[in-house]
Amino acid sequence: MNIENYQIESHNSDLLAKHQRKLAFVTEEVSNAQDIIQKLIDFQIGIPSWALGTGGTRFGRFSSGGEPRNIEEKIEDIGLLHKLNAASGSISLHIPWDTAENVPAIKALVAQQGLSFDAMNSNTFQDQANQAHSYKFGSLQHVDKAVRKQAIDHNIEVIRQGVELGSKALTVWLADGSCFPGQLNFRKAFQNTLESLQEIYAALPADWKVFVEYKAFEPNFYSTTVGDWGQSLLYANKLGPKAFTLVDLGHHLPNANIEQIVALLLMEGKLGGFHFNDSKYGDDDLTAGSMKPYQLFLIFNELVEGMDARGMNHSKDLGWMIDASHNVKDPLEDLLQSVEAIMLAYAQALSVNRTALQQAQAENDVARAQEILQQAFRTDLRPLVAEARLRAGAALAPLDLFRKFNVRQELIKSRGLNTVATGL
Amino acid sequence: MNIENYQIESHNSDLLAKHQRKLAFVTEEVSNAQDIIQKLIDFQIGIPSWALGTGGTRFGRFSSGGEPRNIEEKIEDIGLLHKLNAASGSISLHIPWDTAENVPAIKALVAQQGLSFDAMNSNTFQDQANQAHSYKFGSLQHVDKAVRKQAIDHNIEVIRQGVELGSKALTVWLADGSCFPGQLNFRKAFQNTLESLQEIYAALPADWKVFVEYKAFEPNFYSTTVGDWGQSLLYANKLGPKAFTLVDLGHHLPNANIEQIVALLLMEGKLGGFHFNDSKYGDDDLTAGSMKPYQLFLIFNELVEGMDARGMNHSKDLGWMIDASHNVKDPLEDLLQSVEAIMLAYAQALSVNRTALQQAQAENDVARAQEILQQAFRTDLRPLVAEARLRAGAALAPLDLFRKFNVRQELIKSRGLNTVATGL
Amino acid sequence: MNIENYQIESHNSDLLAKHQRKLAFVTEEVSNAQDIIQKLIDFQIGIPSWALGTGGTRFGRFSSGGEPRNIEEKIEDIGLLHKLNAASGSISLHIPWDTAENVPAIKALVAQQGLSFDAMNSNTFQDQANQAHSYKFGSLQHVDKAVRKQAIDHNIEVIRQGVELGSKALTVWLADGSCFPGQLNFRKAFQNTLESLQEIYAALPADWKVFVEYKAFEPNFYSTTVGDWGQSLLYANKLGPKAFTLVDLGHHLPNANIEQIVALLLMEGKLGGFHFNDSKYGDDDLTAGSMKPYQLFLIFNELVEGMDARGMNHSKDLGWMIDASHNVKDPLEDLLQSVEAIMLAYAQALSVNRTALQQAQAENDVARAQEILQQAFRTDLRPLVAEARLRAGAALAPLDLFRKFNVRQELIKSRGLNTVATGL
Amino acid sequence: MNIENYQIESHNSDLLAKHQRKLAFVTEEVSNAQDIIQKLIDFQIGIPSWALGTGGTRFGRFSSGGEPRNIEEKIEDIGLLHKLNAASGSISLHIPWDTAENVPAIKALVAQQGLSFDAMNSNTFQDQANQAHSYKFGSLQHVDKAVRKQAIDHNIEVIRQGVELGSKALTVWLADGSCFPGQLNFRKAFQNTLESLQEIYAALPADWKVFVEYKAFEPNFYSTTVGDWGQSLLYANKLGPKAFTLVDLGHHLPNANIEQIVALLLMEGKLGGFHFNDSKYGDDDLTAGSMKPYQLFLIFNELVEGMDARGMNHSKDLGWMIDASHNVKDPLEDLLQSVEAIMLAYAQALSVNRTALQQAQAENDVARAQEILQQAFRTDLRPLVAEARLRAGAALAPLDLFRKFNVRQELIKSRGLNTVATGL
Repeated sequence: MNIENYQIESHNSDLLAKHQRKLAFVTEEVSNAQDIIQKLIDFQIGIPSWALGTGGTRFGRFSSGGEPRNIEEKIEDIGLLHKLNAASGSISLHIPWDTAENVPAIKALVAQQGLSFDAMNSNTFQDQANQAHSYKFGSLQHVDKAVRKQAIDHNIEVIRQGVELGSKALTVWLADGSCFPGQLNFRKAFQNTLESLQEIYAALPADWKVFVEYKAFEPNFYSTTVGDWGQSLLYANKLGPKAFTLVDLGHHLPNANIEQIVALLLMEGKLGGFHFNDSKYGDDDLTAGSMKPYQLFLIFNELVEGMDARGMNHSKDLGWMIDASHNVKDPLEDLLQSVEAIMLAYAQALSVNRTALQQAQAENDVARAQEILQQAFRTDLRPLVAEARLRAGAALAPLDLFRKFNVRQELIKSRGLNTVATGL
Repeated sequence: MNIENYQIESHNSDLLAKHQRKLAFVTEEVSNAQDIIQKLIDFQIGIPSWALGTGGTRFGRFSSGGEPRNIEEKIEDIGLLHKLNAASGSISLHIPWDTAENVPAIKALVAQQGLSFDAMNSNTFQDQANQAHSYKFGSLQHVDKAVRKQAIDHNIEVIRQGVELGSKALTVWLADGSCFPGQLNFRKAFQNTLESLQEIYAALPADWKVFVEYKAFEPNFYSTTVGDWGQSLLYANKLGPKAFTLVDLGHHLPNANIEQIVALLLMEGKLGGFHFNDSKYGDDDLTAGSMKPYQLFLIFNELVEGMDARGMNHSKDLGWMIDASHNVKDPLEDLLQSVEAIMLAYAQALSVNRTALQQAQAENDVARAQEILQQAFRTDLRPLVAEARLRAGAALAPLDLFRKFNVRQELIKSRGLNTVATGL
Repeated sequence: MNIENYQIESHNSDLLAKHQRKLAFVTEEVSNAQDIIQKLIDFQIGIPSWALGTGGTRFGRFSSGGEPRNIEEKIEDIGLLHKLNAASGSISLHIPWDTAENVPAIKALVAQQGLSFDAMNSNTFQDQANQAHSYKFGSLQHVDKAVRKQAIDHNIEVIRQGVELGSKALTVWLADGSCFPGQLNFRKAFQNTLESLQEIYAALPADWKVFVEYKAFEPNFYSTTVGDWGQSLLYANKLGPKAFTLVDLGHHLPNANIEQIVALLLMEGKLGGFHFNDSKYGDDDLTAGSMKPYQLFLIFNELVEGMDARGMNHSKDLGWMIDASHNVKDPLEDLLQSVEAIMLAYAQALSVNRTALQQAQAENDVARAQEILQQAFRTDLRPLVAEARLRAGAALAPLDLFRKFNVRQELIKSRGLNTVATGL
Repeated sequence: MNIENYQIESHNSDLLAKHQRKLAFVTEEVSNAQDIIQKLIDFQIGIPSWALGTGGTRFGRFSSGGEPRNIEEKIEDIGLLHKLNAASGSISLHIPWDTAENVPAIKALVAQQGLSFDAMNSNTFQDQANQAHSYKFGSLQHVDKAVRKQAIDHNIEVIRQGVELGSKALTVWLADGSCFPGQLNFRKAFQNTLESLQEIYAALPADWKVFVEYKAFEPNFYSTTVGDWGQSLLYANKLGPKAFTLVDLGHHLPNANIEQIVALLLMEGKLGGFHFNDSKYGDDDLTAGSMKPYQLFLIFNELVEGMDARGMNHSKDLGWMIDASHNVKDPLEDLLQSVEAIMLAYAQALSVNRTALQQAQAENDVARAQEILQQAFRTDLRPLVAEARLRAGAALAPLDLFRKFNVRQELIKSRGLNTVATGL
């Protein structure tokens, strides 16, 4: 399924007059509108290869059809997204689901679609066919050195594949933990995990990073061996300067103040990357911004403030990625909605009057501080996000275009109705 | 895999002296020990057919081998449990996973194992092959009458199968709900569900009950159409005298006071049944009593008090069932542990000095009330539970016997290592 | 402290050009803008008398000075708010804190300020000096009939005072519950409470309503005798047609779907009133809309949809009230922010394209349904809220005006720095 | 109110036969019973001076009478507890509430009661009369250096008082944080707090420790500047070897795995002390072991395992303290219940078969590991706790003795009914 530039231009020209009216209005409202637009153009969000198919729960899965059947089709899907929004410019692969048979061909395809390779993801939470040891009781934490070795080797293999492709980072998400009290010794599990991570760290190329992701619970239901930001930071500090914490929005206990965690990790120089999604109960993996958009804005507010304080490059110095699952919506539509929500929250954060906010904070003027943040959040900045797309050659209204061109129906026609994306 | 009576007797005779010493001790401590033992003998817990295989999460599943491959083997597994503990005397079937091809043969097998049929369970949360309509967007709540009709017919078919087998109740657990704001109209979803339930209710035989189970979230992540006890009670009241609420311990929001819910439902005459399990985070489906044993005791404390207040028969007037999933433990061992924890909590509740408690409550003597409950909980009543088993012809130490006889290895030998229980 | 009409007009005229530009823009975006503005003009939010002073926690309280020292000054403060935003048109009194010595004078003062009397609030969660019995172990639930009688009589006295003043409703919030397992018999506590409420109900004038408020926890920490909406609805149904459930946003367990509760209570014809605030952890009593503004919008979305479905009058058929506490902000500024957030959420809900939403729901078009809600939420409707104020003779920017006129400093000057509002 | 030795002996001799029968039984069950008894004798729990009066919530407070009116009476109350249970051997003072006017006299009184001084507690969460600066917007975090200085000086003064008395540790619990997004800059708040703590740290004597307590929320409702164990550990590591984390059981988000936190802090050598209480919802400050006794056992299981692994002395190398509030029970009775629950959990943890547990863990035998922990928890070890008291000269049944001697009535007689403990 290809969308041609002229089709996008035609779509845009239909909407242009209305867009320009809105843009003119908001540009008058927001003093740094041009700067925001440029930053939005530069900002790219990684799409994980597993988000392109319909997700499921332990209770079932309801496919929407036309799902990508291999890595090539996954790249094509992301290419399509990027064509539509010019903000989905990288792909995050999951090994072994996405192991490339023909590396040069894959690299060429990715380049052709205008994409790059984001962080590589290893998988030691499932048993693959012909695997010598089972991960039933953990991988990097396992009491048996042979199992740990297998999991370490897998991670090193993922790095190797990533190097070939041109990736620069490894994300380690561990399901390791326990389901019942007494099942494991917390301290030994931590130390085994640390030693395993150290072996993986030793295999990292000089210009690579490793992201240690944390998660409060699921699939283990009593403890997780990288369970919260404090534990992840302990690992990252013990590992060294190439190790960082990765924050996934859905991986916290109820009511956690994630924006504060983000601020402190930035303060410590140890925030490495981000997995966007949204949730109401647990790791619901819902569309970014669909439940708590103000929280998403507050998180971006800390990201912008904290990165600027360290002189970091917004678009390059952290890994930005969606990590969502799409049970009831078309995966591609859902991703378009997630990217839109993320860009909007980023734009809102960029529009915060920082000087005024700092002054309000210095005076403990709490009401004024709230007004400043709400002013940024309540102002409708969607025209800036659309303008960034327009300038980058993408669609003013990506989701409308997606539907107008019957993309899903076309994909079903070419790929079939009962496809299952690899790994799902 | 069969365990013979003489084998159990031999096992018991080895442990008898030690058991009797303990029994003598506790009998002196607990004034109504004989009464408790008799009630424990009478108390039977239903085992769901799906709990006999290894469970999983959306991330994976690690089989332990030797799982039952069909309804006959499931019945055999429960028969084995019941042989060991004389407290797992019924089976709760799940349709279509457990549809009996040869009803008389199945009934004979169940009778031969000393079992009976507990509540039947319908399934409208998954799409079966060759199903006309999908449940992706709900079943009894669905906006399309044709889908609702299909789900209603399925439930009526489950009743029909249950009647043939000799069951007396239908449990309706609905995954119906929504994943995103706006997805459905809450009121219409409720009313569609109510109308559907009314059609099912109309098909209930005179001596049947229907249990309306509630759940706060999962697999839907924004709303559930039977989401809490208040909603379930609304349905049950609108349906009529044969409709009741079913409480599953894992189906609540964080920190919910489940024992109070149980007390109020009993007060209203609308508590119908119980699904036992335990959890730390969500619907973790862990072994009963493995996380919050004091809460389990407090729930039984309300059950005993409330049922006695209404003159209900503990063993017959409510449906008792385990609803757990076994990801890291042998399913049969796990069920033995769950039953033991349930029987222990029931025994503790029976040992509460009710007269003293009522007096303490009448005097607002909070410290004394706490002492009375803690006295019941801290006293080691395991010898009473063991004695109930002994008198019923079962094993003093079921789990030890299970291991001594290498039951799992025998099952693997006869059934194979890579079996998957139907429905998992 | 008085603000004169000419001062407001002068303030408005300075802002008018800018406001009209924004209004013109949004009026073009929102098809029913005029209808929304009129509904906003009609919508009035009750201010509780206890929200006018600085609140505190069990750890301490930090006054901001100039707090109202008596009911007259409380009425003046609300009159000032109403002058500024024309949306705070009623006062909700708390007895015994606000018992009026001179009823005609108080009625005259309220009328002079353009206000009316909202629901009356009783207090049986504290012991007053010279009270015969203590509420330490509950009031309407108490095991001792004499204590219940005292609490019943107090509520009847509150009704009597309300009748004199011209109020039409009684809100009963009970702290009743228990701190420890065993402390009370849940069933008896419920039944005692019900009987007590029935006596109060019997004393209600024909045109009065009683609102039964629920709360999950605090100040009791194990159980609450009106603990959730299901329990409140049980009471309301048993009491009769004049009894309704009152929803306070902060009174739920973590992650509760409050908008669904609201929809179902409206469906049952038993939603009576609303207490607005916001929270991150428990009953934090923070400024409405300061934490989860999207949730506030979703709640209003259900309110508008559900009231329209029943042909209810938005502004008259439910009781709308703020119930917040102001620990770190000026109470009056905080209330201005709360009212603004509520009006904005109401405007957003009114702007939802209901026809399109119903169609999306009928087609299970989840992505489209989300787009429709987000379109309403992301559009900046503040100009409509400001225009409603303008047309009603109030200020375009109430908070700015409040600060420009140094209201707090004036109040401190006239009332003193170390005042404590009665009841705090 | 004094209880004489002969009175305790008389009480004990009445209960002795029954006690010895139970002790004999349990001694046969538990192989290391004598070792456990000795460790229980050595184990002492600090009583905070503020726990001796009736606590309250922001809604009210209901005194139980006879509360200690000054530091001398507080010491007497703890002396009484210690006389009864021989396990409450130290007092934790709170400054300025408990500033000693006459230090030598206070030291003599404490010595005479057989007590010692536990950690000192500073208070920067309330404004004291005549205080130059307000802590409304924080203390050690405050944007204004002068406020920070005042708070630092207060902490140094607390150390000074502690040195005079013979204490060896300072506990810093900070209410610092924010109630609304934007109120403070998380990073600057952290850094201000760190700098302030560094100044306090510099004033610590060589043999002193400082405990940095964390808390998730309350009294601030959006963020807390020492909000979780990860933040506390960051401070402790940056401060130096005399700084440690203090864990209070009620200071966590819902569902937190506290036992894992304890294990990891011990692993890092940074666990300093413990505040015991229990909770169902938030920081409910309920009697230890009254809600989740199995969790309390699991925490002690990690404490024992982790301290033994580091060769730490159970009774001396960590600070053990109760931090509870008593709203509906007699404070002294409540403390007796808390100490009993703590000693019981400690005994259970000491009775765990560690060799068997390690083997089960090494084999991933999850069911067996659960059995081992449940064996320890289900065995009734109260006779060991009672025997420890007996050998130490205290009462077999402290609460019974407390009631038999009408202690509270005696205290009311001597102190009055309407006393308020200083600081409450």
